[in-house]
Formats: sequence, structure tokens, C-alpha cells
Amino acid sequence: MAFTKSLVSFVLFSLFVSAFSLSTETRSQESLREARQCRIDRIPTSRPARRIQSEGGHTEIWDEYEDQFLCAGVAAIRNTIHPNSLSLPNFEPAPRLVYIQKGRGIISIVFPGCTESFQSQGYIRTRVGGEGQQQQGIKDRHQKVQTIKQGDAIAIPAGAAHWCYNDGSEDLIAFSITDVTNDANQIEQSLKSFYLAGGQPRRGQEEGQQEQEQEQEQERQNSVNVINELNAEQLAEAFAVPIELIRSLQKPDERGWIVRVEKESLGVIRPDEEEEERERYSERSNGYEERECNARIRQNIDNPRRADIYSRQAGHIQIVNRQTLPILSILDMSIEKGHLHPNALYAPHWTINAHTIVLITRGEGNIQVIGTNGRKVMDDRVHEGDVFVIPQYFTAMSKAGNEGLEWVAIKTSDLPMKSPILGHASAIKGIPIEVLKNAYKITTQEARDIKLNRKDQYMLLPPRSTSSRP
Amino acid sequence: MAFTKSLVSFVLFSLFVSAFSLSTETRSQESLREARQCRIDRIPTSRPARRIQSEGGHTEIWDEYEDQFLCAGVAAIRNTIHPNSLSLPNFEPAPRLVYIQKGRGIISIVFPGCTESFQSQGYIRTRVGGEGQQQQGIKDRHQKVQTIKQGDAIAIPAGAAHWCYNDGSEDLIAFSITDVTNDANQIEQSLKSFYLAGGQPRRGQEEGQQEQEQEQEQERQNSVNVINELNAEQLAEAFAVPIELIRSLQKPDERGWIVRVEKESLGVIRPDEEEEERERYSERSNGYEERECNARIRQNIDNPRRADIYSRQAGHIQIVNRQTLPILSILDMSIEKGHLHPNALYAPHWTINAHTIVLITRGEGNIQVIGTNGRKVMDDRVHEGDVFVIPQYFTAMSKAGNEGLEWVAIKTSDLPMKSPILGHASAIKGIPIEVLKNAYKITTQEARDIKLNRKDQYMLLPPRSTSSRP
Amino acid sequence: MAFTKSLVSFVLFSLFVSAFSLSTETRSQESLREARQCRIDRIPTSRPARRIQSEGGHTEIWDEYEDQFLCAGVAAIRNTIHPNSLSLPNFEPAPRLVYIQKGRGIISIVFPGCTESFQSQGYIRTRVGGEGQQQQGIKDRHQKVQTIKQGDAIAIPAGAAHWCYNDGSEDLIAFSITDVTNDANQIEQSLKSFYLAGGQPRRGQEEGQQEQEQEQEQERQNSVNVINELNAEQLAEAFAVPIELIRSLQKPDERGWIVRVEKESLGVIRPDEEEEERERYSERSNGYEERECNARIRQNIDNPRRADIYSRQAGHIQIVNRQTLPILSILDMSIEKGHLHPNALYAPHWTINAHTIVLITRGEGNIQVIGTNGRKVMDDRVHEGDVFVIPQYFTAMSKAGNEGLEWVAIKTSDLPMKSPILGHASAIKGIPIEVLKNAYKITTQEARDIKLNRKDQYMLLPPRSTSSRP
Repeated sequence: MAFTKSLVSFVLFSLFVSAFSLSTETRSQESLREARQCRIDRIPTSRPARRIQSEGGHTEIWDEYEDQFLCAGVAAIRNTIHPNSLSLPNFEPAPRLVYIQKGRGIISIVFPGCTESFQSQGYIRTRVGGEGQQQQGIKDRHQKVQTIKQGDAIAIPAGAAHWCYNDGSEDLIAFSITDVTNDANQIEQSLKSFYLAGGQPRRGQEEGQQEQEQEQEQERQNSVNVINELNAEQLAEAFAVPIELIRSLQKPDERGWIVRVEKESLGVIRPDEEEEERERYSERSNGYEERECNARIRQNIDNPRRADIYSRQAGHIQIVNRQTLPILSILDMSIEKGHLHPNALYAPHWTINAHTIVLITRGEGNIQVIGTNGRKVMDDRVHEGDVFVIPQYFTAMSKAGNEGLEWVAIKTSDLPMKSPILGHASAIKGIPIEVLKNAYKITTQEARDIKLNRKDQYMLLPPRSTSSRP
Repeated sequence: MAFTKSLVSFVLFSLFVSAFSLSTETRSQESLREARQCRIDRIPTSRPARRIQSEGGHTEIWDEYEDQFLCAGVAAIRNTIHPNSLSLPNFEPAPRLVYIQKGRGIISIVFPGCTESFQSQGYIRTRVGGEGQQQQGIKDRHQKVQTIKQGDAIAIPAGAAHWCYNDGSEDLIAFSITDVTNDANQIEQSLKSFYLAGGQPRRGQEEGQQEQEQEQEQERQNSVNVINELNAEQLAEAFAVPIELIRSLQKPDERGWIVRVEKESLGVIRPDEEEEERERYSERSNGYEERECNARIRQNIDNPRRADIYSRQAGHIQIVNRQTLPILSILDMSIEKGHLHPNALYAPHWTINAHTIVLITRGEGNIQVIGTNGRKVMDDRVHEGDVFVIPQYFTAMSKAGNEGLEWVAIKTSDLPMKSPILGHASAIKGIPIEVLKNAYKITTQEARDIKLNRKDQYMLLPPRSTSSRP
Repeated sequence: MAFTKSLVSFVLFSLFVSAFSLSTETRSQESLREARQCRIDRIPTSRPARRIQSEGGHTEIWDEYEDQFLCAGVAAIRNTIHPNSLSLPNFEPAPRLVYIQKGRGIISIVFPGCTESFQSQGYIRTRVGGEGQQQQGIKDRHQKVQTIKQGDAIAIPAGAAHWCYNDGSEDLIAFSITDVTNDANQIEQSLKSFYLAGGQPRRGQEEGQQEQEQEQEQERQNSVNVINELNAEQLAEAFAVPIELIRSLQKPDERGWIVRVEKESLGVIRPDEEEEERERYSERSNGYEERECNARIRQNIDNPRRADIYSRQAGHIQIVNRQTLPILSILDMSIEKGHLHPNALYAPHWTINAHTIVLITRGEGNIQVIGTNGRKVMDDRVHEGDVFVIPQYFTAMSKAGNEGLEWVAIKTSDLPMKSPILGHASAIKGIPIEVLKNAYKITTQEARDIKLNRKDQYMLLPPRSTSSRP
């Protein structure tokens, strides 16, 4: 019976492996190349394809072989970190932009080559050997630790290790886009995280066995512990510690990549925001200049008072690009948060120099996207949690539903340029009326209406009833 | 009978579609990859492969799947705009350099995010509703309009919409190279134009039916109207105009992409060159700085007095690069116009950092090109209208015929570097005589002749009879 | 009998050609693509695959289709130039970094567009015609000539012609890495040298015939004479010399690419180091600024007193990047020379923004490399002459043997950033102790040991016995 069951499992697992190979490897190179060049006929709204359960939270991963993600060259994931849990130190070979959807916590980005200029408040009590003797007076110095909270955008440069701790009382939920085709990444163009600690999570009991095996297989490709395979003896010599300690470091860790921590044990680590601003230090080794070591890596984008585009009747948009958060010039990425009032419109426009990845954060609405083949590739009702890509030069237009519409848009340029079809600063507004008249075979008055009825409105358009028509 | 005819048409059309698929899709990926890496055995002179007839002119398109164009990563087209006709507003996802071969006209490049700081002279008369009541005193503001004439080079950045009107009395002929593999283009690496107005041209009666169908099929892939497929109702709300007006905008427009305009109707739009120079305005939103909004986009390259390289006996070359036309640094392209006197030589040389696309504009001559495989890939008599590519590092050498030779060369670098084999600033002139002597196993005197006989001549070499040998 | 022999040769040659095609062309595109993305399971130490014998020396070439070289996008060669021999003037379409393993000589890099500002000491005696009459007083001007010696790193920009002469009494041995996938190279991504003189070397008698044919075939793809195929008559006119002289230039030259020179004939060319430093001239044409024309192109990296990282007990490393040799910013490459004392360790680390090509120059040791798949891809004993690649983000760790270990590492970034796992400026040192404790489930004291036992040591770690544990 057990044999039959494991045979069935094996067959099912084999089928999965075949299916997986099919989708990623035997799919024709031509078809993959077309997707990478954004020759796509349909952009669907997308939900996570896989979920990895760790001790202290879980990670949801979108299928990076979906045409729209191949086109944008990015990978999307969402991490959920439970209270009093720690996302283990890791780094990616490509830049990552994170949006905190919910909760609060602390984060530290460990810039390579930068020194440890911050210290935990209070003293660290250490026991020498097993004797329980307490040493006081040794301050623990480390790199900058910062608080994060809902609405924050966080920039993580390629190769910079980072860890994150949920010190709040609810789940910390972080949505991330990694630009795997960024020039910084010269190896595999796929999602990849390198961990300094942690390991493949233990299989949960509540899930089906072969599903777990699928996750395990996929996860092995995405997440890797960089210390475990090094020769223990040499590593012990390198660390100057007993080999037994190295062996316990290298022991398979079934807690996964997010772990529960001892109650209150990370409480000593408190970011001092004021101190952060005061501290100044020089760091020139290894290519990183002072500005990187001390760089601001986060910006709240949920503050209507800081909106870059504002319409009392239509909504507002806050943009964070390399001008407002200079470290983004290293990532060549940027982010915006948009809010449309009920039934308001986001003007038809395209982005000239970037792909756009959209996450709907609240409300619902209709999105239309016209592909570069001139055909409609999306015309969908979108809801909270939907993710989709608007490729470079694809014309998009949105209309909020009765509840309004909120979204986060991450872009693959540090200074994206939007070109609206109509309204202020639009292509049509830059063209003489007589040209429009002849181009569209319409009357002068009609050309004037087309050009000027929205002349003072930029990107955000109030619904017709409240629109200020002349 | 009609059935038989349409059946034949259908079969022929199917054959064409298959043939087309064959040439572009089922051609082996390996073979395309080799062409893209410039592993090519033969560079032929090339003429347009297709012609698209519009109401007010026509467009000729070179086959972008020719090995030489794949190697350079560019697409070549030639637009002919009849007098009193308008090339409709459109933009490309890649930078384009245009050379005006003939005629005159006006052009406007609508930079996204820049405001409308120029105005048509005189007032625009508009009728409110259908009542014929005239409003006066409303000036039409739009982006800069400039005159263009034969010999002008025009820089069109990726994503900038542009329209062009022939206000002269003869055809306006414009030859364009679009750098489809430029980093600015993150989507399909092929010729693509996005139009704000216009549509597939009506089939002419004078041509065979299946040929027209071929053109239609190809054209559908190259030219796209970005407004037609958007939802009419939402678009009417976005423009704040009646839905009937949107429906007439979205009506299939059989005039094509170049249209005749009402007699004299664009006469009100007059570029004021002086005003152009005086106007200064600030523009910082959306990434475009003042310099882009107000950038000079054109330079005449047909003026022997402005020659950068000049030889009384051999000819002259005028170069327009990022130093003479700064906007070229955004395009990463440049252009030169060359003139060889009868029987003069263009010294053997290669270009270090760019591919070169040559259009012969007058006269005839012999061109030799040595490939990077060390073999002769071209040794042809060239004539006016011939187009060919000299890839990076391919050694080229030309000799004018009895009428002399004129050409335009567009390059895929904003600051191309030529390296001549001989003469001033050449590789051989930089090498000590004793090295040359031993390298070629020749006498010191012969090495001296090889090195110094053309020592003061740069690139342009008079024919032997008039050459100033010591 | 002779017929049989040549038949056998032919069959063997055909087999070779097939095998060669197999390895480079019919190897699946998918497999090549995986190697280029560094999906590799094993990094072997590598030795030259081919050897080309010239009159005055020989060239050894590593197989550029080895996975590790495809991953790094580079080609490795080693030139041996005998005393009183000249490596003929040539240039590559990609940047090259050279390390002089042995010997001394003079080199000149002929920058395109730069003038000839240096002159050979003394006068050049030339004979006019065949009469033996001597002209005195004509100085030979040429581009800068510099001395090179063992331990020098030399930067050769893409497209810059260079020649090199061994004026010493022992072989001059130069190991070179060419970054064939550098953006500067827009043509074939493979090893390619363009020669102004020289030709396919004569087959030696001492080697098997079909082996020579193999070399000939391969060499034809790597090395090309750019002058030989141009039309002799036009070339004679271009040089303004008799056609017979051109014919002798274009004659097949069986001496190969490195030739013996007439005894002492290059003795007149003496670099004057002092003059080099004094000379200043302006050069703005053709894109090269003064700094390029006059750029320093060499730096000795064999001087322990200039070490950038120094440990009395463990060894030292000297780094030459764009900050110490500015021309490297044009190449986007850099180099370091490392020395480990007997049994010392090179800390486990990865390079964030570059691939690393290592040449072992002395001693032996153990190298471990962990791939981005988390598995060990190398764990080998390495010896003098071994070459291997450590790809971007692959974790590497070395331990010197009883003789110590010396190496040269060339990197595909002009400012590479290393990230050590432990010690000064490491990831682990930047993390708070309490985070390490929870990440590894160890005690506070153990976390403290892991973090701080090597806290003052950067990259170079003394063996345990001499380590200064607290």
C-alpha cells in the first residue's frame, strides 16, 4: 500500500518534472525570443504560481516564464513575514525594488565594502564558553538598520546582502520586483537569491506530497545557501572557529528562509533615525563611495500630500525616481503609487523608456492595453492583488470603478518618461490645430476640441460629469 | 471565373505568406545570429524591397532581413511626400536619422513632456458648434516648427512624435536610417512606426492584387495606429468630446500615412527662425531637460565651406556628430556627407566604433570592402540610389569614377572613429620606419615611401596624376 | 604510398573539421546559451588548446568554446616572442589586458587619430633609389614607444594597433585576456586579430601534417591580414608607390605573425621615459582626447611595496583598476596580482560586478568554487600555468600549499567589487550578533566568534597556527 502510494507519488512527480521541463526548456527558443521582444498577443492579470512555506512566513512567486514577465525581464515575488520573525540575510545578482504592502519592521542593507558605523543600543551580554560569565561593555557594531512600514518603497542594489525583521504585531507583507535582465546581472537571467544562512524548508504536513516536491524542486533553483558546500575544515580555519561550529552552521536548516526568533532577542537592535541622519563617515575602498555606504534606501510613497501629479477631482500620483531617491540611479528602476477617484480616468499614454509592472493595491477598474501590433492585448476588470505588465510603448488607459482604484507601478528605468495622447504635455497638444484637422479629416472646431478640451489636465482625468468642459 | 481568379489570388497569397514566413521566421536562428554578428560573405548594393502608396506620397522600405542590415541592426526607408501633403504624426521606438535628398518642407518634433511655446502666426478662426460664429483672438500654441530643405540631416529621438509637411512645389524625398537595435528600443528589433492618425492605405488599381496583399501584410507589421483600438466610449470621455467625433477619428482611413491637405490650410504655420533662436523656456518634468525641449535637431551637411576634411584636389567631407549637433548624443548616431573629385580615392580605412550605412547620392565609383574574415566581401561599381552597409572593422576603400562620387554615410555612433591605413593620422604613419621595414621585408627607402608618400593627406587622396609626390 | 598517406591525411583532416564543426556549430544553441549564462556544473583548470608557430615565436590559444570562457565572454592567449623578434602590428575589435609573465621588450600602441609626437634617437639613414646615397637629418617620428618587463600589466583598447619587440636576451612571454563580449565589439564575439603585415605561418617540419592543417584552419579564423586582399593597383595609387612594392607587401608571408628582425635594426628605437613624461600635446580630432593619445597604458603589478592589501603573515594583493590606471575605464577591465604565504587562506568571497580569469603564476594550492546553483563546481589542486574562470557571484576560497601561491586575476570590470563572507568589510561583519545568533541557531558567544575572530583581517588570512585569535 505504502509502495503503491510512493509509486503514485513518483509517477506524479515525474509528470510534474516533465511538465516543468516543457514549460521552461523545451518551449521553443523562437517562442521565448518572441516573448522577450514583447511580441505578445495577450496580457493576462497574474497571480502567484508557487508558494514556499518557511517557519516564520512564506514566499509567493509569480511564474517568470509568463510572456509578460519575459518581455519586461523581471521576476515578481511577495514575502510574508510573521511577527517576531526574521527574513535571513541574502542578496540577489540583480537590483530589486520592494513595496511594503502591510505591516512594519526593521531592515538592514549590508553594502559590500562599507564599514560598520552603527551600534545596537545597550550592551551585548555574552557568555564566555559555557560558564555563563557575563561580559559587558562590548558594543556590537554593524551596518545601518532602518525602520520600514506600510507604503515604503525600498531600493536594494544588486549584490547587497539584506535582512529584515518583523518587530510589529501583524504580518509584514512585501511585494518585490527584481530586474533580472539588468546589466548588473551577467549570469542567469532568472530569479535567484543567495543566502548566508537557512536552507530548504521542511515540508508542511497540510499539503499534498507531490506538490511539496514540486516546490522543493523549483525552490532549489531560486534560493541557494552559499556557505553550506564549502569545505568545513578550511572554513573553520578561515573563520578561526572550531570545526564543530562550522558543522552546525552547515547543518541542513529546515526552518526555511524566514525563521522565528527568540522572544525579544532582536529588541536590542533599534534604528535611531536621528543618529542615522547625523552620522557621516568616509568610505572609498572597493568602488563604493560614501554616498552608497550612507545612501538613503527608502521612501514612503503613500502620502497624498507629496503627490507629484494631483487632481482634486481625479486622484493623485506620487513618483519616486532617481531625482527623489538617488540610489535608484544604481538600480535603474523607479516606482510610483497612483490613486484614481471613483470613475476617474488615467489618460491613454505610453512609457517611452521603460516597462511597467503594475500591482493593484485597492479598488477595481478597467484596464485597456494596445500592443505594438496595434491590437488590444488587455481589456480586463482588475482587482486588488492583480499583477500585470505594460511593456514599453504599449498604450494603456484605465478607468476606476465605483470604489476608485489604487496601484503601485514599478518601472525598469530610474527616470521613466510617460507620453500621454491627450491633455497637458501630450503629443496631440503639441501639434497645431490645422495639422490635427487635416490628419483626422475633421472640422477646425473639432480639432480644437480634441486638442484643448483637457488642455490643463495632466494624466488624471475626472469622470465626465465632474469634468470642467469649457 | 471570378471564383477561379480569387482562388488563384488566394493560392498566390498563401505562397507569399509562406515565403515571407520562410525568410523571416523559419530561416534558421543560427543563420540569423551569424548575420547579426556580421559573419557575412557578401555585401550587395541594395534597393528598396517594398513600396507603400499613400494618398499624398509613398514609402519605400529596404528588406531589413538582408544580412547587411541585420549586421548593422538598422532599417532603411525612403519617404516621398508630394507637394501640399502631410506625413501624419508618428513616432518610432528607436532613434532615426533623416537625410533630405530633395525638396523642402516644414517639420515639427513633438518632445514628450515639453510645453507648447510656439504659436502660429495670425489667429485661428473657429466655429462654435454648427453656428458658424467666429471666435477670434485665440492663438494656437504648439511645439517648435522648423523648415527643412535638401541637404539637411534631421535627428529624431526614440519616442518623439513628428510630422512633416511639404510646402514646396516639388516632391520632398527623405532617406532615413532607424537604429532598431539601439538600447532605447526594448521591444521588437524591427522597423515599427506608431501613428496618431492615418491607416492602411487603399489598394491602388494600377498594381496586381496579390502584390498589394503582400504589401498590406508587411505594412500591418511596420505601421500601427495607436488610437483606433481603444474603447470609443472611454476615449470620448478621456477627450471630453462626443463619441461621434471619436468614431470619426477611429474610422479606417484609406488615405494611408501621407495625406493631401486642404489647399493652403497649413499656410498659417510658419516657422520663425529668428524667434526660434530667441525663445528660451524651462522644462524639467518627465526627465527631459530644457536642452531637449529646445534642442536643435537639424544641420545642413551640403555646404562645402563647412567641410571638416578638405582637399582641393581630392574632395571634401562634412561630419555631423555629437560635437556639432548635441542631440545626437541621445540618438548615438551621426552622419557625414562626402564628395570625391573624379578619379580621387577615399583612403582604405575602417571604423572602430560604428557600423556605417552608405547611400550614394550622385556620380559613380568603385567600392572595395574586406570582411573581418580577411576576404573581399564587396568590389562593386556603385551608382546613385545604391545603399549598402560597411560593418564595424571592415576595411573599405573607394575610387570615384569620371564624374566624381557623392554619398551620405550614417553611423551607429555619435562620435565615430575612423582609422586610415595610410596618410595623416594613420596606423602606418604611427609606426617607426624600421618596424615597417622588418614587418614587410622591404628596404628602408621603400618603408619610408610607404609611410610618408601621403603623409600630409588625410582620408581623401587625389588621383595619382595630380598627387603631390615628393 | 604517397597517395595513401595524403588520403589518410585528408580523411583525418576531414574528421577534424567535422569534430571542430561539432564543437562550435552543431553544439546545441541551447547548450551554448546556458554556458553564456554561466549555468555550468564544473570549472576545470585549463591549458592552451592550440599552438601557432611563427618564425620569431609562437602563440598558444585556449579553447574559447570551453563553458567557463563562454560564461566570462573572454578569450585567453599566450604569446612567446624570441629575442630579437617582432610581434607584427595588429589590432583587435575588443579590449585586451596583457600580463608580462617573463622577459622584457618594447611596445607601441598606435592610437587612431593621434599624431606622431615621438622620434627615434639618432638619424635614419636612407638610400635614395638603389644608389646607396645617404640622406641624413631626417628624423623618424612615430607614436610613443615604451619599455615593458616582467610583472607589467598593459592595457590595449579595442581598435588600437600595437606592435611589440623583444630587445632582451630571453623569451618575452605575455598572457592576454581579450573581452570579446565587451560593448566595444559589435561584430563576432570570438577571438580575432587584424594584422597590417604578416600571414599564415609556414608549416613546421617537426609536427604531424594534419595537426598543422587543423591549426591553419583555426588560425585562418583568428588572424587576418587586412591589406592583402585590397586591389593592388588602387592600393599602389593610394600609397603613391609602385605597384611592385604593393605586390611585395601582399606576398604571402610564411614567417607568420611574429618575425625575426635584422640584427640590431630596431636598436635605434629607444623609448625615452623621461621625455615620455615631459611631452604634452593636444589632440582632439576623431574622438580621441589628449588623455587617450598620451595615456599611460602600463603598470607594474609585481611590487609588494605597492600592495593594496597587505598582511605580514598571510600575503599581499596589488590591484590595478581605473583609479590607478585611468585608461582601464575605456577597457572596462582590471587586473590584480596576488601572493599567499604558505598555507595561508584567501577568504571565501564573490565578485559582485565582474567575472574573474585566474592564471596561476607560481606555487600551488587548493581552490574551491561554489556555483550559483549552490553546488561545488571546482575543488582542485592548481599549479603554475593553470587558467580558470570564477564567474560573477560564484563563491571562491583558496588555500596556499607549502610553497605559497601566486596568481594574476583579470576582471571584466574597471572597478570590481569583492564581497568577503568574513573578516573586515564582510557581509557577516555588517550583521548584528543577535541576527547571526538567530540565523544560525547558535549561542551569542558563537555568533560573536563567527563575526569577530577575523575582524581586522581583510581577504588574506594567516594559517591557523599564526592566526591572532583573541
